[in-house]
Amino acid sequence: MDSPLFALMLATTGDATKLLLEMFLVFASAKLLAEVAERLRQPPVVGELAAGVLLGPAVLGWVRPNDLLSVLADLGVMFLLFRVGLELRDFRLTKVGANALAVAVVGVVVPFLAGWGLMVALGHPRIEAVFVGAALVATSVGITARVLAAKGLLDHQASKIILAAAIIDDVLGLLVLAVVSSSASGTLNLVELCTTAALAVAFTFLVAQWGTRTMEKIVPKLESRMRSGEGQFTLAMLAVFGLSLLAVYAGVAAIIGAFLAGMALAKSVDHRVHEMTTGVTELLVPFFLVGIGLHLDVTALKDPGMLVLAVAVTALACATKFIGCGLGALRMGWRDATRIGIGMMPRGEVGMVVAQIGLGLGVIAPGIYGVVVLMSIATTVIAPPLLQLAYRDLIRVEAEGQALPRVG
Amino acid sequence: MDSPLFALMLATTGDATKLLLEMFLVFASAKLLAEVAERLRQPPVVGELAAGVLLGPAVLGWVRPNDLLSVLADLGVMFLLFRVGLELRDFRLTKVGANALAVAVVGVVVPFLAGWGLMVALGHPRIEAVFVGAALVATSVGITARVLAAKGLLDHQASKIILAAAIIDDVLGLLVLAVVSSSASGTLNLVELCTTAALAVAFTFLVAQWGTRTMEKIVPKLESRMRSGEGQFTLAMLAVFGLSLLAVYAGVAAIIGAFLAGMALAKSVDHRVHEMTTGVTELLVPFFLVGIGLHLDVTALKDPGMLVLAVAVTALACATKFIGCGLGALRMGWRDATRIGIGMMPRGEVGMVVAQIGLGLGVIAPGIYGVVVLMSIATTVIAPPLLQLAYRDLIRVEAEGQALPRVG
Repeated sequence: MDSPLFALMLATTGDATKLLLEMFLVFASAKLLAEVAERLRQPPVVGELAAGVLLGPAVLGWVRPNDLLSVLADLGVMFLLFRVGLELRDFRLTKVGANALAVAVVGVVVPFLAGWGLMVALGHPRIEAVFVGAALVATSVGITARVLAAKGLLDHQASKIILAAAIIDDVLGLLVLAVVSSSASGTLNLVELCTTAALAVAFTFLVAQWGTRTMEKIVPKLESRMRSGEGQFTLAMLAVFGLSLLAVYAGVAAIIGAFLAGMALAKSVDHRVHEMTTGVTELLVPFFLVGIGLHLDVTALKDPGMLVLAVAVTALACATKFIGCGLGALRMGWRDATRIGIGMMPRGEVGMVVAQIGLGLGVIAPGIYGVVVLMSIATTVIAPPLLQLAYRDLIRVEAEGQALPRVG
Repeated sequence: MDSPLFALMLATTGDATKLLLEMFLVFASAKLLAEVAERLRQPPVVGELAAGVLLGPAVLGWVRPNDLLSVLADLGVMFLLFRVGLELRDFRLTKVGANALAVAVVGVVVPFLAGWGLMVALGHPRIEAVFVGAALVATSVGITARVLAAKGLLDHQASKIILAAAIIDDVLGLLVLAVVSSSASGTLNLVELCTTAALAVAFTFLVAQWGTRTMEKIVPKLESRMRSGEGQFTLAMLAVFGLSLLAVYAGVAAIIGAFLAGMALAKSVDHRVHEMTTGVTELLVPFFLVGIGLHLDVTALKDPGMLVLAVAVTALACATKFIGCGLGALRMGWRDATRIGIGMMPRGEVGMVVAQIGLGLGVIAPGIYGVVVLMSIATTVIAPPLLQLAYRDLIRVEAEGQALPRVG
């Protein structure tokens, strides 16, 4: 097929065709391995993460992480969180606030100290140790939210605590990262740090508190004036893009803005908007999940010492989030504490971003970067099966409920 | 806000934030100007195209065409055509084949000869004249399909002819382009050209003819075996990516593959898949429409001679497609011939691709490139209001039907 005509066709459509092929490979392998995972009684996300590892440089090398795929991944996790927010009934941040705050704070302090301590004990430079600690602080709420949403468990009390704690964790994690990075580059400014923190907290609190009421007022009013196309869906998209953007400007992650947009709109949009958003989410989420797996870098792990360190850091990451968040939630009973401890485990894309910043600042070695990436992926793969196990009594009740004929 | 902390945040999320801002601007301005267009009794697509001109380098310069936006645009037109295919009831390429073939062939020959003739008469180089002719052959079916779908007119006989003729036109256009380009680079090979043509025709014919039956057999079978997630929607996405990719390999545009995938699935998927696909389409189509407007390049048109040429080429482009396609459809009556002639007018992104190839091969001057781009955008903006006018009697019937209370 390498005729001049075919070459011409490729020259004109080359990049687009390559991306189309990559999209097909990513989507198809994600769905195929999700089916395999289901048959092994594992959550489908595990299969989708494994598809990334398989397609990526670690195994087959067919697809490499690139800008276009990472944009699709970013949009995927944004819409996933938006969809989760839209799904929540009767969720008020203030109602779960005290418990969630305890979970988040203890779940930040314990992993940070443990990660830092381990690295210092092993004789690594202080700043590298601090970065590993910061990576252990990260929480990738997308994975947990996906597992819980798939099983219809978002409305459970423990699930709500996980979501709220993950939001608080995101703000705390960003502050830890800011302190760590600015002290690494010698630009630490306490006043500025407090301003940023205040802005982030204010944005999150304001949208969580008054978002729903505001949307209930403006959505019907605007919709009645719109004449073209899908009014409510258009407003929903404007809200998700607008609030994601405002979130970034206020110093929190875009996905938090998307989640808040979903929460705020939950009561203002009808069933069709849910269905249409599900379409966008189902299309894009595989790119997020596969994208995490694509980043697995095995070159650093060929050194046996590094491999041992990676296993140790991963074990520490699992144990410290479980213990830290579990401790914070202990007054809710050991069963919910277990669920919350496991739900906060995945570091996913957030842990990898911390490692990338450290690498960019030149304060962590490439080997340690590989260790943190492995830890991020491993915690993300380990948590979903454990989560399914921790929620197994509720899943059974749900499954029995579904044995009845479904309406609609 | 240019604190080190904010700079750090931007450094880690910089590109993603820029894209998020661009997505918000594109989506919001498209929807805003669509509303304005509705109030001026114009089709919303005109507003969305105008949003691109406004945001782009031609006026405000806030958003420049870039790789990420153009991927979203490509996906947008792909899903638009998929959605149109999914919507069609009882559409068989063979049933409208003879009329559509006549429309496509006359609608290719007349614009090509006219464009080439004009440029030669004005003393331009032969090869440049040939490229302008080839650009006049292009048909951007996405725009017409969007207007017709929005008004619920896809099932009308003239609309079906337009869609079928646009598919044939795409194959013919690609062949014209191949001949033109390979003769420009001195690599014309007739045997190879015939092979490519045969492959393109065979692919389109086979999928159009047996796609529906095949999908009716395999979709329910596969779906019953799938355990995770949205089975039918997953299969639909695999079909759209898979057939788009095969289309490119067979020598036709990806959007033709997407359209055929929609047609093939129309009877095999339920209402939910339609809704979910609508979500994806409604999100992405504005990027396609705005993307066209973003490419308007006014620097070339500051030369009054070029501006006059651009106006002349645009007038010729409108007149020749209208007359050529209208002539091909004359036996259907003058009313349908008018609709078809107008529906085939927009050159959109396809005309711009031809210009880009010519520029890339160094056979058309930058000024002529600007002329072709203006012609592509202008024909795309002019056609929708005319199309609305040509279908006005049917739209009125439709609107009266909608005065009754809608169910669902």
